[in-house]
Amino acid sequence: MQESMTLAMYGAIAGAVALAFALVTFASIMKEPMGTPRMKQISEAVQEGAMAYLNRQYKTLIPFTLVVAVLLVLVLPRLDPRIKGDALAISFLVGAVCSAIAGYLGMNSTTKSNARTAEAARSHGLGKALNVSFRAGAVMGLSVAGLGLLGVSVLYLIYKDPVVINSFAFGASAIAFFARVGGGIYTKAADVGADLVGKVEAGIPEDDPRNPATIADNVGDNVGDTAGMGADLFESYAATTIAAMIIGNAIFGPKGALFPLVVGAVGIIASILGTFFVRTGEGGNPQAALNLGLWATNIMTAIGVYFLSAWTFPGKDALGIFLAVAAGLIVNVAIGALTEYYTSNSRPPCLRIAEASKTGPATNVIHGLSVGMESVFFPMLFFAAAIYFAYWVASWESASHAIYGIAMAAMGMLSTAGIVVAMDSFGPVADNAGGIAEMAELPPEVRQKTDKLDAVGNTTAAIAKGFAIGSAALTALALFQAYADEVARNPKLQHLLTDGHLVINLNNPQVLVGLLIGASIPFVVSASTMRAVGDAAYGMVNEVRRQFREIKGIMEGEAKPDYARCVSIATGAAINKMIFPGLVAVIVPLIVGFGLGAMALAGYLAGLTATGVLMALFLANAGGSWDNAKKWIEAGNLGGKKIDGKPNPIHQAAVIGDTVGDPCKDTSGPAMNPLIKVAGTVSLIIGAVLFR
Amino acid sequence: MQESMTLAMYGAIAGAVALAFALVTFASIMKEPMGTPRMKQISEAVQEGAMAYLNRQYKTLIPFTLVVAVLLVLVLPRLDPRIKGDALAISFLVGAVCSAIAGYLGMNSTTKSNARTAEAARSHGLGKALNVSFRAGAVMGLSVAGLGLLGVSVLYLIYKDPVVINSFAFGASAIAFFARVGGGIYTKAADVGADLVGKVEAGIPEDDPRNPATIADNVGDNVGDTAGMGADLFESYAATTIAAMIIGNAIFGPKGALFPLVVGAVGIIASILGTFFVRTGEGGNPQAALNLGLWATNIMTAIGVYFLSAWTFPGKDALGIFLAVAAGLIVNVAIGALTEYYTSNSRPPCLRIAEASKTGPATNVIHGLSVGMESVFFPMLFFAAAIYFAYWVASWESASHAIYGIAMAAMGMLSTAGIVVAMDSFGPVADNAGGIAEMAELPPEVRQKTDKLDAVGNTTAAIAKGFAIGSAALTALALFQAYADEVARNPKLQHLLTDGHLVINLNNPQVLVGLLIGASIPFVVSASTMRAVGDAAYGMVNEVRRQFREIKGIMEGEAKPDYARCVSIATGAAINKMIFPGLVAVIVPLIVGFGLGAMALAGYLAGLTATGVLMALFLANAGGSWDNAKKWIEAGNLGGKKIDGKPNPIHQAAVIGDTVGDPCKDTSGPAMNPLIKVAGTVSLIIGAVLFR
Repeated sequence: MQESMTLAMYGAIAGAVALAFALVTFASIMKEPMGTPRMKQISEAVQEGAMAYLNRQYKTLIPFTLVVAVLLVLVLPRLDPRIKGDALAISFLVGAVCSAIAGYLGMNSTTKSNARTAEAARSHGLGKALNVSFRAGAVMGLSVAGLGLLGVSVLYLIYKDPVVINSFAFGASAIAFFARVGGGIYTKAADVGADLVGKVEAGIPEDDPRNPATIADNVGDNVGDTAGMGADLFESYAATTIAAMIIGNAIFGPKGALFPLVVGAVGIIASILGTFFVRTGEGGNPQAALNLGLWATNIMTAIGVYFLSAWTFPGKDALGIFLAVAAGLIVNVAIGALTEYYTSNSRPPCLRIAEASKTGPATNVIHGLSVGMESVFFPMLFFAAAIYFAYWVASWESASHAIYGIAMAAMGMLSTAGIVVAMDSFGPVADNAGGIAEMAELPPEVRQKTDKLDAVGNTTAAIAKGFAIGSAALTALALFQAYADEVARNPKLQHLLTDGHLVINLNNPQVLVGLLIGASIPFVVSASTMRAVGDAAYGMVNEVRRQFREIKGIMEGEAKPDYARCVSIATGAAINKMIFPGLVAVIVPLIVGFGLGAMALAGYLAGLTATGVLMALFLANAGGSWDNAKKWIEAGNLGGKKIDGKPNPIHQAAVIGDTVGDPCKDTSGPAMNPLIKVAGTVSLIIGAVLFR
Repeated sequence: MQESMTLAMYGAIAGAVALAFALVTFASIMKEPMGTPRMKQISEAVQEGAMAYLNRQYKTLIPFTLVVAVLLVLVLPRLDPRIKGDALAISFLVGAVCSAIAGYLGMNSTTKSNARTAEAARSHGLGKALNVSFRAGAVMGLSVAGLGLLGVSVLYLIYKDPVVINSFAFGASAIAFFARVGGGIYTKAADVGADLVGKVEAGIPEDDPRNPATIADNVGDNVGDTAGMGADLFESYAATTIAAMIIGNAIFGPKGALFPLVVGAVGIIASILGTFFVRTGEGGNPQAALNLGLWATNIMTAIGVYFLSAWTFPGKDALGIFLAVAAGLIVNVAIGALTEYYTSNSRPPCLRIAEASKTGPATNVIHGLSVGMESVFFPMLFFAAAIYFAYWVASWESASHAIYGIAMAAMGMLSTAGIVVAMDSFGPVADNAGGIAEMAELPPEVRQKTDKLDAVGNTTAAIAKGFAIGSAALTALALFQAYADEVARNPKLQHLLTDGHLVINLNNPQVLVGLLIGASIPFVVSASTMRAVGDAAYGMVNEVRRQFREIKGIMEGEAKPDYARCVSIATGAAINKMIFPGLVAVIVPLIVGFGLGAMALAGYLAGLTATGVLMALFLANAGGSWDNAKKWIEAGNLGGKKIDGKPNPIHQAAVIGDTVGDPCKDTSGPAMNPLIKVAGTVSLIIGAVLFR
């Protein structure tokens, strides 16, 4: 026991080191110059809008979190007196607060770095701009991973029961779902609104200061891509660690419970070291620098885990568990490569969409849907292979150890979250920097440099999206198995067990019914989030049209548009529309579990995970491919944007496809990840008190 | 045993009666006049194109069927000597041939009735036109149900083993998959080609004789909606009956094996009687007449089954099994109503899409996707409820009888296939009649009458689509359970059983991996069929453009377009592009079963069924709703087709949505039904010989 507490302490220390490193990095960024007063002013407007949104989002969620906490304290212990309701409630609140802190830290860092990145590009060049923007991303990445590891480790030191601290993951996942959905709606409402009226109707360029929605659009990049993704991966990180701890505890006792923390610690230290590999000179290739950082982190993590596994586990488990972790690392790379294949505009799928634009928007959309649907197969095959492999290697020592394999593969994948989030978050910083360069009317070569970074950011964002989906899938499976373990411990459900295990038989009508209901929920949540973007964008379009009409001198640059009003419309829409899907995500598992029983809930989780992952891949890849097909045409292919001064109909068709893809890839698709995870964490909590 | 053979004889007799009734009806239709020589000529061109397509389709499938038959004879008995390979091969070929016969009979009837319907509308009026077109549909409906029941009953009389005659269902389902996919590609390639160049570019009306693709378009209505749907439901009918027989045999012996035939016989007699309720006068409401026919059939079936169940089963099973059948009948009605709700243009979902067209095609498409995704939830809930209920009532007498419930619910749903197919098939006849009225330049009031029937046909088609999806879902579940029973009898797989039953544990990695792979296959098949339509339509567009350009005098009506070339392009594309998805459907289950084992195949079936049904609902309802949103605008809403003589951009946006929806609702969506069934029938055959 003493030794195991030492392990938890290592986890806490690694988490704290990562956080400290994040804060030091943040302080160092703050010393960089912000450029001209105009740049500072714009940056502050974006920052203000982003913070206003975050404040309102978290404020809206306070009643929800308090109600849940009260239910945890008052209701659960009545259903089973052995349950420590106060511990659950505290863990839940800590999880929710940590998620919010990670969001604030990351958002602060990225929104304060955009002007600094633009200034770095202006006064120093590409290398420095990459350095500033990537450091800003690293603050986000290390905050996410550090807070996750620290929170889980400290709660474990206090409560010594992984099931209690699952509530931490539940808190994180509830917040993550709202952050993902709200952020996704915000960013797309602003983007679609800004583009449809500004670019298409008024014919002014992207990020033009005359466009009233332009600040909202830049805010959206931060609240969607940075805060949403950060919350999502914070949740994956917490939930996977805890699911692995629960399963490990059941199989190996404290040693098994703590090894996931050790893997997390290795990954986080490797991520910190990995950030130092990301450097490039003026003519250099930022993508290569980022890839080097990622590979270095993966390799260092693998080496570290190899030795620690050998030190922790006896017999064949030592190698088996290392290989399971390695499988997670490999799937991570594979999913990233597949995402890149299906969305990159130098590859056949995306070019097919561009080609289909020749016969108009309908064929563009048909081919985009087809690419998205097609893109699910190989990632699913990789997941399946990784699951099979991890299961197999973990069973070498004993068949009963097998299910630890999937959890450790998930842990392996997530251990490098620090650097992956850093790579993802630097993109919006570079994107914003470009926006500021445009709005502050800096020389065009500054914009060219930030555009180069932004293009790299699109690729790293695709990789991070694949990572988020893959980690959500493995996390959900680990939670599913932890749930089965929890039900097996539930004294009221002993009649459901066979040889002490929960056998989730697909031929049992409860399981089948749960599976069918669960499988349909991702469609429902996709539908409601997609509709929300449509409605919110509609409001934004009308507001921008109104300002162009009513504010005199706006098009001549003589009058300032009312940026704040657009920010406030996007904020209001995002907050209002995130409620319904959020409640569906949290409440339906409760209805299924208490109404139809523990078996139905198991089926629900399986069905939800399968279609949730499929929809996530379909929507993300279709959207990404539509986007890049448009960009490829804009680069001058198939006639480019204009032919003989007139809009090129091929480009117009591609713009329509891209707009259809916007809510797919940035709202509905990303909402799938927290959807499947929140169901898992909720189920894990009620698994101990279900009565049928 | 003697008594049970008598029951099978009743099944065979009812099937033969239905077939005889179909032939008599067909003969009576042939006595109706065909109208002017021009009408006759057009009708014959359509018929010729349709028959040419069917001939080529079946000819292409001959090598495939022969290879499968040879494999059944040569390979299976080596894997397990108890297997009668020749019986399997014969049943398979009989199933394939019966499916083809049903296709020919129905197609013959509908293509020979189109001009007769137009003539009836011209010389007698609406009532007579409904009478002719519905009788044509009834020939199809009763051929499908009659051949299904006759084939299964006779094969049972010969082989007395439901597992052997499952091969009949396999034959039917293999053909059905190709027919659905090929027909779906054909109809949409022709439709999109005819519309994009004819209506949009050349500005000539629908069905204008100057359009080279117009005959192909009319052929498409027959090969897609009639032959494809007929093959689909023939398969459901055969597969459900056989799955119910296998499960019933395992539980009740011959009595249980034969009761499904009795339910089929009752349904078919009720369907024949039901057709007599479908009559209307000149000012009458054809929809009401059709609804009356459907309700009468449902009620007669329910009453018949109530008494026969009481006569066949002792104790609580009598009522329980009747209630399970009744649940199937009710789900049938409920799914139809839900389909109608999500696609009708007097309901909110469709109006939302129309409204969204105001802000352009992108928002139209986004809302259409959202409506389609939303529409899956309540049907899935109804399936889940029906499964739960059927399971529960069937377990009243004994828990071991429970799984007979789902099979009997499926049987209840399908027992009325005769009249449902009739209602579905009359639509294309009316649609074609309208086309002929247009091309033969009949007075406009004829077209108005056929349009009225066509509009009703769209609603009944929606109901039939819901029916096809619902029956496919229940059929697939019944097959899934029959598969579990088969594996339990497989001597090599006894180590997989627990208490003599196959426990399909979701916590088993094989099952999980199978589930994930199975869940992804519907996306792959959707993608490939959608892409096929895109590519085939592209070829058609180019051909129509070429004819307009190269054939002089075509636009003035002085030169005849080359209809045959368009027919042949559509045929070639449909045949070529149906191969890949067809092989995926048949071969992947073999790979999973022999490669990963019986458990993985069980997971595969579950995953495939869940997402297959979801995708079927999503695609069909999104497509239907886009279509009707466009029609609603064309009826003069939101500005109608033109504003001040210029194309209304709102209408143009809706046309784009409709075109996106075309392959969704008529190709990819309908392909899902045979996809999930063919996997079930293949698995059922190899379930006896899997070796791991």
